[in-house]
Amino acid sequence: MTITTQEPHTMDELTARAAFDRAINTYKQEFGEFFLARFCGLQIDYDQSSCIIEFSVEEYMFNPQGSLHGGIIALVLDVSMGHLLRHHAGPGVTLEMTTKYLKAVRGGRLHAKGEFLKRGKQICFLRSELYDSDQQLIAFATSTWKIL
Amino acid sequence: MTITTQEPHTMDELTARAAFDRAINTYKQEFGEFFLARFCGLQIDYDQSSCIIEFSVEEYMFNPQGSLHGGIIALVLDVSMGHLLRHHAGPGVTLEMTTKYLKAVRGGRLHAKGEFLKRGKQICFLRSELYDSDQQLIAFATSTWKIL
Amino acid sequence: MTITTQEPHTMDELTARAAFDRAINTYKQEFGEFFLARFCGLQIDYDQSSCIIEFSVEEYMFNPQGSLHGGIIALVLDVSMGHLLRHHAGPGVTLEMTTKYLKAVRGGRLHAKGEFLKRGKQICFLRSELYDSDQQLIAFATSTWKIL
Amino acid sequence: MTITTQEPHTMDELTARAAFDRAINTYKQEFGEFFLARFCGLQIDYDQSSCIIEFSVEEYMFNPQGSLHGGIIALVLDVSMGHLLRHHAGPGVTLEMTTKYLKAVRGGRLHAKGEFLKRGKQICFLRSELYDSDQQLIAFATSTWKIL
Repeated sequence: MTITTQEPHTMDELTARAAFDRAINTYKQEFGEFFLARFCGLQIDYDQSSCIIEFSVEEYMFNPQGSLHGGIIALVLDVSMGHLLRHHAGPGVTLEMTTKYLKAVRGGRLHAKGEFLKRGKQICFLRSELYDSDQQLIAFATSTWKIL
Repeated sequence: MTITTQEPHTMDELTARAAFDRAINTYKQEFGEFFLARFCGLQIDYDQSSCIIEFSVEEYMFNPQGSLHGGIIALVLDVSMGHLLRHHAGPGVTLEMTTKYLKAVRGGRLHAKGEFLKRGKQICFLRSELYDSDQQLIAFATSTWKIL
Repeated sequence: MTITTQEPHTMDELTARAAFDRAINTYKQEFGEFFLARFCGLQIDYDQSSCIIEFSVEEYMFNPQGSLHGGIIALVLDVSMGHLLRHHAGPGVTLEMTTKYLKAVRGGRLHAKGEFLKRGKQICFLRSELYDSDQQLIAFATSTWKIL
Repeated sequence: MTITTQEPHTMDELTARAAFDRAINTYKQEFGEFFLARFCGLQIDYDQSSCIIEFSVEEYMFNPQGSLHGGIIALVLDVSMGHLLRHHAGPGVTLEMTTKYLKAVRGGRLHAKGEFLKRGKQICFLRSELYDSDQQLIAFATSTWKIL
Protein backbone atom coordinates (compact mmCIF):
# COMPACT_ATOMS: atom_id res chain seq x y z
CA MET A 1 0.00 0.00 0.00
CA THR A 2 1.31 3.34 -1.03
CA ILE A 3 0.61 6.50 0.88
CA THR A 4 1.04 9.57 -1.24
CA THR A 5 1.71 12.67 0.78
CA GLN A 6 0.71 15.44 -1.48
CA GLU A 7 1.81 18.92 -0.54
CA PRO A 8 0.64 21.28 -3.18
CA HIS A 9 1.80 24.85 -3.26
CA THR A 10 5.01 24.48 -1.37
CA MET A 11 8.35 25.90 -2.30
CA ASP A 12 12.00 24.99 -1.97
CA GLU A 13 12.38 25.89 1.69
CA LEU A 14 16.04 24.92 1.99
CA THR A 15 17.01 27.52 -0.57
CA ALA A 16 14.90 30.14 1.19
CA ARG A 17 16.54 29.34 4.52
CA ALA A 18 20.02 29.41 2.98
CA ALA A 19 19.24 32.79 1.44
CA PHE A 20 18.08 34.16 4.76
CA ASP A 21 21.11 32.82 6.62
CA ARG A 22 23.48 34.18 3.98
CA ALA A 23 21.81 37.55 4.25
CA ILE A 24 21.75 37.78 8.02
CA ASN A 25 25.37 36.67 8.27
CA THR A 26 26.88 38.91 5.60
CA TYR A 27 24.77 42.05 5.20
CA LYS A 28 25.82 45.56 6.03
CA GLN A 29 23.21 48.27 5.77
CA GLU A 30 25.24 49.96 3.05
CA PHE A 31 25.03 50.23 -0.70
CA GLY A 32 25.82 46.89 -2.33
CA GLU A 33 25.43 44.86 0.82
CA PHE A 34 22.13 45.75 2.48
CA PHE A 35 19.91 43.01 3.79
CA LEU A 36 17.33 42.88 0.98
CA ALA A 37 20.07 42.76 -1.66
CA ARG A 38 21.71 39.87 0.16
CA PHE A 39 18.42 38.08 0.72
CA CYS A 40 17.71 38.20 -3.02
CA GLY A 41 21.28 37.15 -3.77
CA LEU A 42 22.00 40.27 -5.82
CA GLN A 43 25.50 40.47 -7.22
CA ILE A 44 26.05 44.15 -7.94
CA ASP A 45 28.77 45.41 -10.29
CA TYR A 46 29.56 48.56 -12.25
CA ASP A 47 31.13 49.29 -15.58
CA GLN A 48 31.87 52.67 -17.14
CA SER A 49 28.30 53.86 -17.39
CA SER A 50 26.02 51.17 -16.01
CA CYS A 51 25.20 49.07 -12.95
CA ILE A 52 24.83 45.36 -13.64
CA ILE A 53 22.99 43.09 -11.23
CA GLU A 54 22.89 39.33 -11.49
CA PHE A 55 20.71 37.01 -9.42
CA SER A 56 19.03 33.63 -9.52
CA VAL A 57 15.25 33.32 -9.57
CA GLU A 58 14.17 31.22 -6.58
CA GLU A 59 10.76 30.01 -5.50
CA TYR A 60 10.71 32.18 -2.37
CA MET A 61 10.52 35.17 -4.75
CA PHE A 62 7.38 33.89 -6.46
CA ASN A 63 3.88 35.31 -6.69
CA PRO A 64 0.93 33.01 -5.97
CA GLN A 65 0.79 32.15 -9.68
CA GLY A 66 4.20 30.54 -9.61
CA SER A 67 6.44 33.10 -11.28
CA LEU A 68 8.86 35.79 -10.15
CA HIS A 69 6.88 38.45 -8.27
CA GLY A 70 6.58 41.84 -9.95
CA GLY A 71 7.59 43.45 -6.67
CA ILE A 72 10.92 41.61 -6.72
CA ILE A 73 11.46 42.69 -10.32
CA ALA A 74 10.73 46.28 -9.29
CA LEU A 75 13.11 45.95 -6.35
CA VAL A 76 15.98 44.68 -8.50
CA LEU A 77 15.49 47.34 -11.20
CA ASP A 78 15.21 50.02 -8.51
CA VAL A 79 18.46 48.82 -6.92
CA SER A 80 20.26 48.84 -10.29
CA MET A 81 19.30 52.47 -10.86
CA GLY A 82 19.74 53.73 -7.30
CA HIS A 83 23.17 52.13 -7.03
CA LEU A 84 24.28 53.59 -10.35
CA LEU A 85 23.11 57.01 -9.23
CA ARG A 86 24.95 56.69 -5.90
CA HIS A 87 28.06 55.49 -7.74
CA HIS A 88 28.19 58.46 -10.13
CA ALA A 89 26.25 61.30 -8.53
CA GLY A 90 25.83 60.50 -4.85
CA PRO A 91 22.74 59.33 -2.97
CA GLY A 92 19.29 60.24 -4.24
CA VAL A 93 15.65 59.42 -3.74
CA THR A 94 13.30 57.82 -6.25
CA LEU A 95 10.55 60.25 -7.15
CA GLU A 96 8.81 57.75 -9.38
CA MET A 97 9.38 54.56 -11.29
CA THR A 98 7.51 52.89 -14.13
CA THR A 99 7.94 49.22 -14.94
CA LYS A 100 6.72 47.27 -17.96
CA TYR A 101 6.40 43.52 -17.38
CA LEU A 102 7.07 41.79 -20.68
CA LYS A 103 7.47 38.13 -19.80
CA ALA A 104 6.87 35.86 -16.82
CA VAL A 105 9.93 34.03 -15.56
CA ARG A 106 10.03 30.86 -13.46
CA GLY A 107 13.71 30.21 -12.92
CA GLY A 108 17.24 30.71 -14.15
CA ARG A 109 19.72 33.49 -13.79
CA LEU A 110 18.72 37.05 -14.67
CA HIS A 111 20.70 40.22 -15.15
CA ALA A 112 19.60 43.84 -14.90
CA LYS A 113 21.41 46.78 -16.43
CA GLY A 114 20.79 50.25 -15.04
CA GLU A 115 21.83 53.30 -17.09
CA PHE A 116 21.34 57.06 -17.13
CA LEU A 117 18.87 58.67 -19.50
CA LYS A 118 20.03 62.04 -18.21
CA ARG A 119 22.35 63.17 -15.44
CA GLY A 120 21.19 66.53 -14.13
CA LYS A 121 22.46 68.45 -11.12
CA GLN A 122 19.25 68.12 -9.15
CA ILE A 123 17.17 65.66 -11.17
CA CYS A 124 18.35 62.48 -12.90
CA PHE A 125 16.45 60.14 -15.20
CA LEU A 126 17.43 56.48 -15.38
CA ARG A 127 16.36 53.32 -17.14
CA SER A 128 16.94 49.65 -16.46
CA GLU A 129 16.40 46.45 -18.39
CA LEU A 130 16.04 42.94 -17.01
CA TYR A 131 17.10 40.02 -19.21
CA ASP A 132 17.08 36.27 -18.80
CA SER A 133 20.02 34.09 -19.79
CA ASP A 134 18.65 33.77 -23.34
CA GLN A 135 18.81 37.58 -23.67
CA GLN A 136 15.04 37.80 -23.68
CA LEU A 137 13.80 41.10 -22.25
CA ILE A 138 11.80 40.37 -19.09
CA ALA A 139 11.09 43.88 -17.82
CA PHE A 140 11.91 47.50 -18.60
CA ALA A 141 11.84 50.39 -16.16
CA THR A 142 12.37 54.14 -16.27
CA SER A 143 12.59 56.37 -13.21
CA THR A 144 13.08 59.92 -11.94
CA TRP A 145 15.44 60.72 -9.06
CA LYS A 146 16.22 63.73 -6.93
CA ILE A 147 19.83 64.12 -5.86
CA LEU A 148 20.14 64.63 -2.10
CA MET B 1 38.76 48.73 30.97
CA THR B 2 35.82 48.52 28.70
CA ILE B 3 35.97 47.56 25.08
CA THR B 4 33.14 48.98 23.03
CA THR B 5 32.31 46.95 20.03
CA GLN B 6 30.69 49.34 17.66
CA GLU B 7 28.63 47.86 14.90
CA PRO B 8 27.36 50.60 12.63
CA HIS B 9 24.81 49.89 10.01
CA THR B 10 23.21 46.90 11.61
CA MET B 11 19.53 46.20 11.85
CA ASP B 12 17.12 44.52 14.24
CA GLU B 13 18.03 40.94 13.38
CA LEU B 14 15.66 39.30 15.83
CA THR B 15 12.70 40.83 14.05
CA ALA B 16 14.05 39.73 10.69
CA ARG B 17 14.51 36.18 11.94
CA ALA B 18 11.05 36.11 13.49
CA ALA B 19 9.60 37.32 10.20
CA PHE B 20 11.40 34.62 8.28
CA ASP B 21 10.34 31.88 10.68
CA ARG B 22 6.74 33.07 10.66
CA ALA B 23 6.80 33.04 6.89
CA ILE B 24 8.40 29.64 6.44
CA ASN B 25 6.07 28.07 8.99
CA THR B 26 2.80 29.52 7.80
CA TYR B 27 2.98 30.26 4.10
CA LYS B 28 1.05 28.56 1.35
CA GLN B 29 1.90 29.50 -2.22
CA GLU B 30 -1.61 30.86 -2.69
CA PHE B 31 -3.21 34.28 -2.80
CA GLY B 32 -3.14 35.92 0.62
CA GLU B 33 -0.62 33.52 2.10
CA PHE B 34 2.37 33.28 -0.22
CA PHE B 35 5.85 33.43 1.19
CA LEU B 36 6.73 37.05 0.33
CA ALA B 37 3.45 38.29 1.79
CA ARG B 38 4.13 36.39 5.00
CA PHE B 39 7.74 37.53 5.14
CA CYS B 40 6.62 41.15 4.91
CA GLY B 41 3.88 40.51 7.46
CA LEU B 42 1.12 41.59 5.09
CA GLN B 43 -2.38 41.37 6.53
CA ILE B 44 -4.66 41.25 3.50
CA ASP B 45 -8.38 42.05 3.69
CA TYR B 46 -11.17 43.02 1.33
CA ASP B 47 -14.17 45.25 1.54
CA GLN B 48 -16.87 45.83 -1.08
CA SER B 49 -14.62 47.36 -3.70
CA SER B 50 -11.07 47.47 -2.36
CA CYS B 51 -8.22 45.36 -1.02
CA ILE B 52 -6.68 46.68 2.20
CA ILE B 53 -3.21 45.62 3.30
CA GLU B 54 -1.66 46.45 6.65
CA PHE B 55 1.92 45.84 7.68
CA SER B 56 4.63 47.13 9.98
CA VAL B 57 7.76 48.76 8.59
CA GLU B 58 10.80 46.85 9.84
CA GLU B 59 14.49 47.46 9.37
CA TYR B 60 15.00 44.38 7.23
CA MET B 61 12.86 46.14 4.60
CA PHE B 62 15.16 49.17 4.46
CA ASN B 63 17.24 50.62 1.68
CA PRO B 64 20.89 51.54 2.42
CA GLN B 65 19.74 55.05 3.35
CA GLY B 66 17.70 53.81 6.27
CA SER B 67 14.13 54.01 5.04
CA LEU B 68 11.57 51.59 3.62
CA HIS B 69 12.86 50.34 0.26
CA GLY B 70 10.95 51.47 -2.83
CA GLY B 71 10.91 47.87 -4.01
CA ILE B 72 9.00 46.79 -0.91
CA ILE B 73 6.55 49.65 -1.43
CA ALA B 74 6.10 48.51 -5.04
CA LEU B 75 5.61 44.93 -3.87
CA VAL B 76 2.91 45.84 -1.34
CA LEU B 77 1.03 48.08 -3.80
CA ASP B 78 1.31 45.39 -6.48
CA VAL B 79 -0.10 42.79 -4.07
CA SER B 80 -3.01 45.07 -3.12
CA MET B 81 -3.99 45.45 -6.77
CA GLY B 82 -3.30 41.88 -7.88
CA HIS B 83 -5.26 40.45 -4.96
CA LEU B 84 -8.21 42.77 -5.61
CA LEU B 85 -8.21 41.73 -9.26
CA ARG B 86 -8.11 38.04 -8.35
CA HIS B 87 -10.89 38.56 -5.79
CA HIS B 88 -13.28 40.22 -8.28
CA ALA B 89 -12.20 39.16 -11.77
CA GLY B 90 -9.91 36.14 -11.45
CA PRO B 91 -6.14 35.92 -11.83
CA GLY B 92 -4.31 38.35 -14.08
CA VAL B 93 -0.85 39.55 -14.97
CA THR B 94 0.57 43.01 -14.42
CA LEU B 95 1.38 44.59 -17.76
CA GLU B 96 2.85 47.70 -16.19
CA MET B 97 2.85 49.64 -12.95
CA THR B 98 3.81 53.21 -12.12
CA THR B 99 4.62 54.29 -8.59
CA LYS B 100 5.08 57.80 -7.20
CA TYR B 101 7.15 57.96 -4.01
CA LEU B 102 5.90 60.90 -1.98
CA LYS B 103 7.49 60.49 1.44
CA ALA B 104 10.22 58.40 3.05
CA VAL B 105 9.09 56.24 5.97
CA ARG B 106 11.23 54.78 8.73
CA GLY B 107 8.81 52.87 10.92
CA GLY B 108 5.24 52.45 12.06
CA ARG B 109 2.26 50.70 10.62
CA LEU B 110 1.20 51.37 7.05
CA HIS B 111 -1.90 50.52 5.09
CA ALA B 112 -2.41 50.22 1.35
CA LYS B 113 -5.75 50.42 -0.41
CA GLY B 114 -6.08 48.91 -3.88
CA GLU B 115 -9.07 49.87 -6.05
CA PHE B 116 -10.27 49.56 -9.63
CA LEU B 117 -10.01 52.47 -12.03
CA LYS B 118 -11.77 50.34 -14.63
CA ARG B 119 -12.89 46.72 -14.77
CA GLY B 120 -12.77 45.54 -18.35
CA LYS B 121 -13.30 42.03 -19.70
CA GLN B 122 -9.72 41.64 -20.92
CA ILE B 123 -7.91 44.65 -19.51
CA CYS B 124 -8.28 46.19 -16.05
CA PHE B 125 -6.81 49.39 -14.65
CA LEU B 126 -6.15 49.68 -10.93
CA ARG B 127 -4.77 52.18 -8.45
CA SER B 128 -3.41 51.85 -4.95
CA GLU B 129 -2.47 54.29 -2.21
CA LEU B 130 -0.13 53.72 0.71
CA TYR B 131 -0.73 55.68 3.92
CA ASP B 132 1.04 55.87 7.25
CA SER B 133 -0.83 55.85 10.56
CA ASP B 134 -1.17 59.67 10.44
CA GLN B 135 -3.01 59.33 7.10
CA GLN B 136 -0.10 60.90 5.25
CA LEU B 137 0.14 59.62 1.68
CA ILE B 138 3.42 57.70 1.27
CA ALA B 139 3.07 56.36 -2.25
CA PHE B 140 0.57 56.19 -5.10
CA ALA B 141 0.49 53.60 -7.86
CA THR B 142 -1.53 52.93 -10.98
CA SER B 143 -1.31 49.77 -13.07
CA THR B 144 -2.61 47.90 -16.10
CA TRP B 145 -3.56 44.20 -15.95
CA LYS B 146 -4.51 41.54 -18.41
CA ILE B 147 -7.10 39.01 -17.25
CA LEU B 148 -5.92 35.43 -17.78
CA MET C 1 -27.38 60.78 -64.12
CA THR C 2 -25.93 61.58 -60.77
CA ILE C 3 -22.31 61.25 -59.98
CA THR C 4 -21.65 60.75 -56.31
CA THR C 5 -18.34 62.05 -55.23
CA GLN C 6 -17.49 60.05 -52.20
CA GLU C 7 -14.93 61.53 -49.90
CA PRO C 8 -14.24 59.10 -47.14
CA HIS C 9 -12.11 60.03 -44.19
CA THR C 10 -12.87 63.69 -44.06
CA MET C 11 -13.71 65.70 -40.98
CA ASP C 12 -15.85 68.68 -40.07
CA GLU C 13 -13.61 71.35 -41.53
CA LEU C 14 -15.80 74.29 -40.62
CA THR C 15 -15.42 73.52 -36.94
CA ALA C 16 -11.66 73.15 -37.34
CA ARG C 17 -11.43 76.52 -39.08
CA ALA C 18 -13.62 78.19 -36.49
CA ALA C 19 -11.40 76.78 -33.76
CA PHE C 20 -8.29 78.06 -35.44
CA ASP C 21 -9.77 81.52 -36.01
CA ARG C 22 -11.00 81.73 -32.42
CA ALA C 23 -7.53 80.75 -31.23
CA ILE C 24 -5.58 83.12 -33.41
CA ASN C 25 -7.87 86.01 -32.57
CA THR C 26 -8.07 85.59 -28.81
CA TYR C 27 -4.92 83.86 -27.55
CA LYS C 28 -2.29 85.37 -25.32
CA GLN C 29 0.80 83.29 -24.66
CA GLU C 30 -0.06 83.21 -20.95
CA PHE C 31 -1.56 80.66 -18.59
CA GLY C 32 -5.20 80.06 -19.37
CA GLU C 33 -5.12 81.70 -22.77
CA PHE C 34 -2.23 80.26 -24.76
CA PHE C 35 -2.76 79.26 -28.36
CA LEU C 36 -3.04 75.47 -27.93
CA ALA C 37 -5.55 75.89 -25.11
CA ARG C 38 -7.66 78.19 -27.30
CA PHE C 39 -7.33 75.92 -30.33
CA CYS C 40 -8.67 72.99 -28.30
CA GLY C 41 -11.38 75.21 -26.83
CA LEU C 42 -10.26 74.59 -23.26
CA GLN C 43 -12.31 76.39 -20.63
CA ILE C 44 -10.05 76.52 -17.59
CA ASP C 45 -11.37 77.18 -14.08
CA TYR C 46 -10.20 76.68 -10.50
CA ASP C 47 -11.89 75.81 -7.29
CA GLN C 48 -10.37 75.55 -3.82
CA SER C 49 -7.98 72.70 -4.59
CA SER C 50 -8.40 71.69 -8.20
CA CYS C 51 -8.24 72.90 -11.79
CA ILE C 52 -11.25 72.02 -13.91
CA ILE C 53 -11.07 72.02 -17.69
CA GLU C 54 -14.04 71.60 -19.98
CA PHE C 55 -13.91 71.15 -23.73
CA SER C 56 -15.81 69.63 -26.63
CA VAL C 57 -14.44 66.71 -28.58
CA GLU C 58 -14.18 67.68 -32.25
CA GLU C 59 -13.10 65.70 -35.29
CA TYR C 60 -9.94 67.75 -35.82
CA MET C 61 -8.67 66.23 -32.54
CA PHE C 62 -9.10 62.66 -33.81
CA ASN C 63 -6.59 59.89 -34.38
CA PRO C 64 -6.74 57.98 -37.68
CA GLN C 65 -9.07 55.47 -36.05
CA GLY C 66 -11.74 58.06 -35.50
CA SER C 67 -11.55 58.82 -31.79
CA LEU C 68 -10.01 61.54 -29.62
CA HIS C 69 -6.23 61.33 -30.01
CA GLY C 70 -4.28 60.19 -26.95
CA GLY C 71 -1.94 63.12 -27.45
CA ILE C 72 -4.82 65.58 -27.05
CA ILE C 73 -5.92 63.73 -23.91
CA ALA C 74 -2.36 63.99 -22.59
CA LEU C 75 -2.28 67.69 -23.48
CA VAL C 76 -5.51 68.46 -21.63
CA LEU C 77 -4.51 66.49 -18.53
CA ASP C 78 -1.07 68.12 -18.58
CA VAL C 79 -2.66 71.57 -18.78
CA SER C 80 -5.00 70.80 -15.87
CA MET C 81 -2.04 69.85 -13.65
CA GLY C 82 0.38 72.54 -14.84
CA HIS C 83 -2.23 75.27 -14.41
CA LEU C 84 -3.14 74.06 -10.93
CA LEU C 85 0.52 74.05 -9.98
CA ARG C 86 1.03 77.56 -11.33
CA HIS C 87 -2.11 78.75 -9.52
CA HIS C 88 -0.99 77.45 -6.11
CA ALA C 89 2.78 77.12 -6.19
CA GLY C 90 4.08 79.11 -9.16
CA PRO C 91 5.41 77.87 -12.48
CA GLY C 92 6.99 74.44 -12.74
CA VAL C 93 8.19 71.91 -15.28
CA THR C 94 6.79 68.44 -15.87
CA LEU C 95 9.44 65.86 -15.07
CA GLU C 96 7.25 62.99 -16.13
CA MET C 97 3.65 62.06 -16.71
CA THR C 98 1.84 58.75 -16.92
CA THR C 99 -1.54 58.39 -18.56
CA LYS C 100 -3.92 55.44 -18.54
CA TYR C 101 -6.37 55.39 -21.43
CA LEU C 102 -9.55 53.71 -20.22
CA LYS C 103 -12.14 54.42 -22.90
CA ALA C 104 -12.21 55.74 -26.44
CA VAL C 105 -14.38 58.82 -26.95
CA ARG C 106 -15.85 60.10 -30.21
CA GLY C 107 -17.72 63.23 -29.23
CA GLY C 108 -19.46 65.18 -26.50
CA ARG C 109 -18.23 67.46 -23.77
CA LEU C 110 -15.45 66.28 -21.44
CA HIS C 111 -14.12 67.63 -18.20
CA ALA C 112 -10.74 67.10 -16.56
CA LYS C 113 -9.98 67.65 -12.89
CA GLY C 114 -6.38 68.21 -11.82
CA GLU C 115 -5.45 67.86 -8.13
CA PHE C 116 -2.38 67.63 -5.95
CA LEU C 117 -1.17 64.30 -4.63
CA LYS C 118 1.50 66.17 -2.70
CA ARG C 119 2.66 69.77 -2.59
CA GLY C 120 6.36 69.87 -1.78
CA LYS C 121 8.69 72.86 -1.78
CA GLN C 122 10.77 71.62 -4.71
CA ILE C 123 8.83 68.65 -6.04
CA CYS C 124 5.08 68.30 -6.46
CA PHE C 125 3.03 65.27 -7.44
CA LEU C 126 -0.29 65.73 -9.19
CA ARG C 127 -3.09 63.65 -10.65
CA SER C 128 -5.83 64.36 -13.14
CA GLU C 129 -8.96 62.56 -14.27
CA LEU C 130 -10.86 62.99 -17.52
CA TYR C 131 -14.61 62.27 -17.53
CA ASP C 132 -17.28 62.35 -20.19
CA SER C 133 -20.69 63.88 -19.61
CA ASP C 134 -22.00 60.54 -18.29
CA GLN C 135 -19.31 60.63 -15.58
CA GLN C 136 -17.49 57.72 -17.18
CA LEU C 137 -13.75 57.85 -16.54
CA ILE C 138 -11.96 58.31 -19.88
CA ALA C 139 -8.36 58.72 -18.74
CA PHE C 140 -6.31 59.02 -15.56
CA ALA C 141 -2.90 60.65 -15.24
CA THR C 142 -0.32 61.17 -12.55
CA SER C 143 2.75 63.39 -12.86
CA THR C 144 5.85 64.75 -11.15
CA TRP C 145 6.79 68.44 -11.29
CA LYS C 146 9.75 70.53 -10.31
CA ILE C 147 8.99 74.02 -9.01
CA LEU C 148 11.01 76.68 -10.82
CA MET D 1 9.24 110.97 -30.68
CA THR D 2 9.02 107.25 -30.96
CA ILE D 3 6.02 105.27 -29.92
CA THR D 4 6.86 101.73 -29.07
CA THR D 5 3.98 99.40 -29.43
CA GLN D 6 4.87 96.54 -27.20
CA GLU D 7 3.01 93.32 -27.71
CA PRO D 8 4.30 90.83 -25.25
CA HIS D 9 3.37 87.20 -25.44
CA THR D 10 2.53 86.94 -29.07
CA MET D 11 3.66 84.24 -31.42
CA ASP D 12 4.54 83.84 -35.07
CA GLU D 13 0.99 83.84 -36.39
CA LEU D 14 1.90 83.50 -40.05
CA THR D 15 3.54 80.17 -39.40
CA ALA D 16 0.52 79.01 -37.41
CA ARG D 17 -1.83 80.00 -40.21
CA ALA D 18 0.36 78.33 -42.83
CA ALA D 19 0.37 75.15 -40.73
CA PHE D 20 -3.39 75.19 -40.44
CA ASP D 21 -3.89 75.81 -44.15
CA ARG D 22 -1.42 73.08 -45.07
CA ALA D 23 -3.26 70.70 -42.75
CA ILE D 24 -6.78 71.48 -43.90
CA ASN D 25 -5.76 71.27 -47.55
CA THR D 26 -3.78 68.04 -47.44
CA TYR D 27 -5.01 65.86 -44.58
CA LYS D 28 -6.75 62.55 -44.91
CA GLN D 29 -8.09 60.96 -41.76
CA GLU D 30 -5.74 58.02 -42.26
CA PHE D 31 -2.48 56.87 -40.76
CA GLY D 32 0.36 59.17 -41.76
CA GLU D 33 -1.87 61.96 -43.01
CA PHE D 34 -4.46 62.76 -40.35
CA PHE D 35 -5.19 66.36 -39.47
CA LEU D 36 -3.21 66.65 -36.23
CA ALA D 37 -0.14 65.10 -37.86
CA ARG D 38 -0.39 67.59 -40.72
CA PHE D 39 -1.03 70.51 -38.39
CA CYS D 40 2.14 69.67 -36.46
CA GLY D 41 4.04 69.16 -39.71
CA LEU D 42 4.95 65.56 -38.87
CA GLN D 43 6.99 63.80 -41.53
CA ILE D 44 6.46 60.11 -40.82
CA ASP D 45 8.79 57.42 -42.18
CA TYR D 46 9.62 53.81 -41.44
CA ASP D 47 12.74 51.75 -41.54
CA GLN D 48 13.16 48.04 -40.83
CA SER D 49 12.11 48.16 -37.20
CA SER D 50 11.28 51.73 -36.28
CA CYS D 51 9.06 54.69 -37.11
CA ILE D 52 10.90 57.98 -37.51
CA ILE D 53 9.09 61.30 -37.23
CA GLU D 54 10.63 64.65 -38.01
CA PHE D 55 9.08 68.03 -37.36
CA SER D 56 9.97 71.64 -36.67
CA VAL D 57 9.24 73.25 -33.32
CA GLU D 58 7.03 76.30 -33.88
CA GLU D 59 5.67 78.85 -31.46
CA TYR D 60 2.06 77.73 -31.90
CA MET D 61 3.11 74.49 -30.16
CA PHE D 62 4.38 76.31 -27.06
CA ASN D 63 3.27 76.21 -23.45
CA PRO D 64 2.75 79.52 -21.62
CA GLN D 65 6.37 79.38 -20.48
CA GLY D 66 7.68 79.62 -24.02
CA SER D 67 8.82 76.10 -24.81
CA LEU D 68 7.41 73.12 -26.69
CA HIS D 69 4.31 71.93 -24.83
CA GLY D 70 4.55 68.54 -23.12
CA GLY D 71 1.26 67.58 -24.71
CA ILE D 72 2.70 68.05 -28.19
CA ILE D 73 5.72 65.96 -27.19
CA ALA D 74 3.36 63.27 -25.93
CA LEU D 75 1.37 63.47 -29.16
CA VAL D 76 4.42 63.04 -31.38
CA LEU D 77 5.81 60.13 -29.34
CA ASP D 78 2.36 58.52 -29.28
CA VAL D 79 2.11 58.85 -33.08
CA SER D 80 5.57 57.32 -33.57
CA MET D 81 4.58 54.25 -31.56
CA GLY D 82 1.03 53.91 -32.83
CA HIS D 83 2.14 54.20 -36.44
CA LEU D 84 4.90 51.63 -35.95
CA LEU D 85 2.39 49.26 -34.38
CA ARG D 86 -0.06 49.75 -37.23
CA HIS D 87 2.75 49.26 -39.77
CA HIS D 88 3.91 45.92 -38.31
CA ALA D 89 1.00 44.47 -36.36
CA GLY D 90 -2.16 46.30 -37.40
CA PRO D 91 -4.18 48.92 -35.54
CA GLY D 92 -4.16 48.99 -31.75
CA VAL D 93 -5.16 51.14 -28.83
CA THR D 94 -2.86 52.76 -26.29
CA LEU D 95 -3.55 51.33 -22.86
CA GLU D 96 -1.07 53.60 -21.18
CA MET D 97 1.94 55.76 -21.90
CA THR D 98 4.65 57.20 -19.69
CA THR D 99 6.79 60.13 -20.77
CA LYS D 100 9.93 61.54 -19.16
CA TYR D 101 10.65 65.17 -20.04
CA LEU D 102 14.40 65.64 -19.97
CA LYS D 103 15.00 68.99 -21.56
CA ALA D 104 12.97 72.05 -22.61
CA VAL D 105 13.17 72.93 -26.30
CA ARG D 106 12.40 76.29 -27.91
CA GLY D 107 13.04 75.71 -31.59
CA GLY D 108 14.78 73.68 -34.25
CA ARG D 109 14.06 70.40 -35.90
CA LEU D 110 13.35 67.33 -33.76
CA HIS D 111 13.13 63.66 -34.58
CA ALA D 112 11.38 60.88 -32.73
CA LYS D 113 12.14 57.19 -33.09
CA GLY D 114 9.54 54.65 -32.07
CA GLU D 115 10.54 51.00 -31.55
CA PHE D 116 9.15 47.79 -30.12
CA LEU D 117 10.14 46.60 -26.68
CA LYS D 118 8.06 43.49 -27.30
CA ARG D 119 5.69 42.37 -30.03
CA GLY D 120 3.07 40.11 -28.53
CA LYS D 121 -0.04 38.69 -30.18
CA GLN D 122 -2.47 40.63 -28.01
CA ILE D 123 -0.27 43.07 -26.12
CA CYS D 124 2.69 45.06 -27.43
CA PHE D 125 5.16 47.24 -25.55
CA LEU D 126 6.85 50.13 -27.32
CA ARG D 127 9.30 52.91 -26.59
CA SER D 128 10.11 56.17 -28.30
CA GLU D 129 12.84 58.75 -28.00
CA LEU D 130 12.77 62.39 -29.04
CA TYR D 131 16.05 64.07 -30.02
CA ASP D 132 16.98 67.56 -31.12
CA SER D 133 19.35 68.21 -34.02
CA ASP D 134 22.35 68.07 -31.65
CA GLN D 135 21.34 64.51 -30.70
CA GLN D 136 20.40 65.64 -27.22
CA LEU D 137 17.65 63.48 -25.74
CA ILE D 138 14.56 65.67 -25.18
CA ALA D 139 12.02 63.08 -24.04
CA PHE D 140 11.64 59.34 -23.58
CA ALA D 141 8.39 57.38 -23.57
CA THR D 142 7.28 53.81 -23.06
CA SER D 143 3.79 52.50 -23.69
CA THR D 144 1.50 49.48 -23.64
CA TRP D 145 -0.83 48.68 -26.53
CA LYS D 146 -3.64 46.25 -27.17
CA ILE D 147 -3.92 44.89 -30.70
CA LEU D 148 -7.43 45.30 -32.11
